[in-house]
Amino acid sequence: MTDSPRWDRIWVNIHAATMVDDAAGGAYGAIGDAAVAVLGDRIAWVGAMHDLPDLPARLAAEVIDGRGAWMTPGLIDCHTHLVYGGSRALEFEARLNGASYEDIARAGGGILSTVTATRGADEDRLAAMALPRLDALLAEGVTTIEVKSGYGLETDTELRMLRTARRLGRMRPVDVRTTLLGAHALPPEFADDAEAYVDLVCDEMIPAAVAAGLADAVDAFCERIGFTAGQTRRVFEAARRHGLPVKLHAEQLSDQKGAMLAAGFGALSADHLEYVDDDGIAAMAAAGTVAVLLPGAFYMLRETQLPPIAALRAAGVPIAISTDCNPGTSPVTSLLLMLNMACTLFRLTPEEALAGVTRVAARALGLADRGQIREGMRADLALWRIEAPAALSYMAGFNPCIGVVRAGVPRDPRHGFPVSAGGGDAA
Amino acid sequence: MTDSPRWDRIWVNIHAATMVDDAAGGAYGAIGDAAVAVLGDRIAWVGAMHDLPDLPARLAAEVIDGRGAWMTPGLIDCHTHLVYGGSRALEFEARLNGASYEDIARAGGGILSTVTATRGADEDRLAAMALPRLDALLAEGVTTIEVKSGYGLETDTELRMLRTARRLGRMRPVDVRTTLLGAHALPPEFADDAEAYVDLVCDEMIPAAVAAGLADAVDAFCERIGFTAGQTRRVFEAARRHGLPVKLHAEQLSDQKGAMLAAGFGALSADHLEYVDDDGIAAMAAAGTVAVLLPGAFYMLRETQLPPIAALRAAGVPIAISTDCNPGTSPVTSLLLMLNMACTLFRLTPEEALAGVTRVAARALGLADRGQIREGMRADLALWRIEAPAALSYMAGFNPCIGVVRAGVPRDPRHGFPVSAGGGDAA
Ligand SMILES: [Zn+2]
Ligand SMILES: [Zn+2]
Repeated sequence: MTDSPRWDRIWVNIHAATMVDDAAGGAYGAIGDAAVAVLGDRIAWVGAMHDLPDLPARLAAEVIDGRGAWMTPGLIDCHTHLVYGGSRALEFEARLNGASYEDIARAGGGILSTVTATRGADEDRLAAMALPRLDALLAEGVTTIEVKSGYGLETDTELRMLRTARRLGRMRPVDVRTTLLGAHALPPEFADDAEAYVDLVCDEMIPAAVAAGLADAVDAFCERIGFTAGQTRRVFEAARRHGLPVKLHAEQLSDQKGAMLAAGFGALSADHLEYVDDDGIAAMAAAGTVAVLLPGAFYMLRETQLPPIAALRAAGVPIAISTDCNPGTSPVTSLLLMLNMACTLFRLTPEEALAGVTRVAARALGLADRGQIREGMRADLALWRIEAPAALSYMAGFNPCIGVVRAGVPRDPRHGFPVSAGGGDAA
Repeated sequence: MTDSPRWDRIWVNIHAATMVDDAAGGAYGAIGDAAVAVLGDRIAWVGAMHDLPDLPARLAAEVIDGRGAWMTPGLIDCHTHLVYGGSRALEFEARLNGASYEDIARAGGGILSTVTATRGADEDRLAAMALPRLDALLAEGVTTIEVKSGYGLETDTELRMLRTARRLGRMRPVDVRTTLLGAHALPPEFADDAEAYVDLVCDEMIPAAVAAGLADAVDAFCERIGFTAGQTRRVFEAARRHGLPVKLHAEQLSDQKGAMLAAGFGALSADHLEYVDDDGIAAMAAAGTVAVLLPGAFYMLRETQLPPIAALRAAGVPIAISTDCNPGTSPVTSLLLMLNMACTLFRLTPEEALAGVTRVAARALGLADRGQIREGMRADLALWRIEAPAALSYMAGFNPCIGVVRAGVPRDPRHGFPVSAGGGDAA
């Protein structure tokens, strides 16, 4: 009679970029020659191989040889508009062929073309269109993703987008966090009455999403071409009445004092922030609101106003990075490319960039149970064939992900199926 | 007794972006509801389905249903430094952590660190390191790639790099074109005597590469931090004596009149060109020299001087696009990302960008037998799950390639093995 092993499985011969937030630790919270053990869906042990209390094979039912790979927390894409109908490829082309924004609007283009296509797509169709985008992200080690609504601009379609997002989380091994973004743009039906549309968002959409359990947070687009600070405040107050945390698209194109407003509501995050001022940064720091930077949109729009990285750092505002995957301003399905752009364009360090898609991204979603390799955290992990963590930011268009662990279960990053103990594909 | 079918295989239910250079044709030389047939390694027929002279199954031994996919010529990456030793990820990180170029040079970084690592790597090692980069490119439909030497800066290592490149072409289903770039940088052994190093390139490297059949072209880096126009001219004269065509890294950081010089030698291409002037453009147009634009390096270096696209267009200089895959200034392994950057940063149209990695890229390599879907051309093809060809440029970090045909043989783009008739993987 033998004791059963205390852990389900253990990875050995790896290097771990734990990303723990520990001033005493070195860069990336790195542990060379590490081992990481899981029990159920949790991380049960992490440390140097030589600190293991016994032989790996006696400690865990399964021993996995990482052969020198680096392990990081599973990546978290904390700001996406992954679910939408239609395509804006032809609009992208028309613009490069000389069409003006006005020409495109007159031809039914712009965000309203996405709204029309999304309204016309049922849940099956929306899921089928989103899946290839999701799979591209998952192949790069993403284990948690936020998905916003915001292309319905009417209650039925907004809820359908959120239901689709939840369904994606059942179709693939990924945690989906949903955000109601009813206040994304003004729908044509309310072109002359923004306040009435905000009424609809506050009095119908938010309650309906809450009743159906479809929204984990509420977001808005506070901008000259979006909603005013006053309208945003009304949306936030409705969210607060229903117990939902808020986030905000703030200061992307101009300074609307949105970050300040968001911080006043204890927002999880304020996102974009190219035009945020010092008062907004101070308010975010005081409130613990995360700055989510979106280099893909910055790049696609050829923006020249950089987000105030130095001021955010100086104020101690945590910085997350995300794809902003959306058809209009960031048709991006690579979170690794965003690491490269965050470093190249925003001059973040590779360590800041990686924290921005792990530990800080978790915080931007209000999730305290992930984003670090630490005992008790969810065992969402990614394995990389790289020489150093900086390689994740250094390459562009290269995917060194060789494995993903989601809730303790090893998976092939290319298709999400569990990997058998022998290393082959269960599929 | 029946006639044997005239073609080996035919793709039906596809849309073809033929990219033929035909003023009478529409955008992309597109044919909707097309069929493309191959015999041996050549394209035997291309046209609309309804123009087929008989039923597909009577015309070809194998009929492949493209189910609405788009077919393009196989992509051609016409300017890469794919083969090298070491990694510059830590240098990338050091710079973002505040190290100056001087700090990095003092620590043995910069191009010389790549030279040292390349000199220390044997052919097996160089091939093993290059393969993941090559596989990333092949997964996006690349069927021909140019690979330069230039990190040996001594004859043995330069030839070993070229031999490695040739070997990659045997390890994977891709045509590799090799370019000797001995005049890439001044090696430390010749720090005080550039002319003597140019002697070595002219009198030893070029003859040795020619004798071994290892070089399809000769290139140089004409720049303040590279070689002078006079030194470049000497390299070109040596290439001409040995019957090799030339290419040039020209006007990347300053105007050295390199494009003019290259055109005078009938160069296949002048590459980079941010700082080229009107005389250089006129000379290129007269000589038929292709402009190879490298948006990855432009992006990574945060260059602000755009290549003169309007002037190149006006002069009728054909424009190619490439990754410039290299460890220092363009660690890029996605040609599709370069399409996106060419459109986003340089304002090329998606059609120009696609021509730049097919028809024009072939010309930049002196290859008249590929880059278009046209009878008699090599049957190097790529299949894409996209709604329109513009989608190839529109997305960033997304790979819609669902199939590759190389020399008439269908292959899975993810691993290069032939696909069986039943659609499964031979592997
Ligand atoms: Zn957004
Ligand atoms: Zn180059």
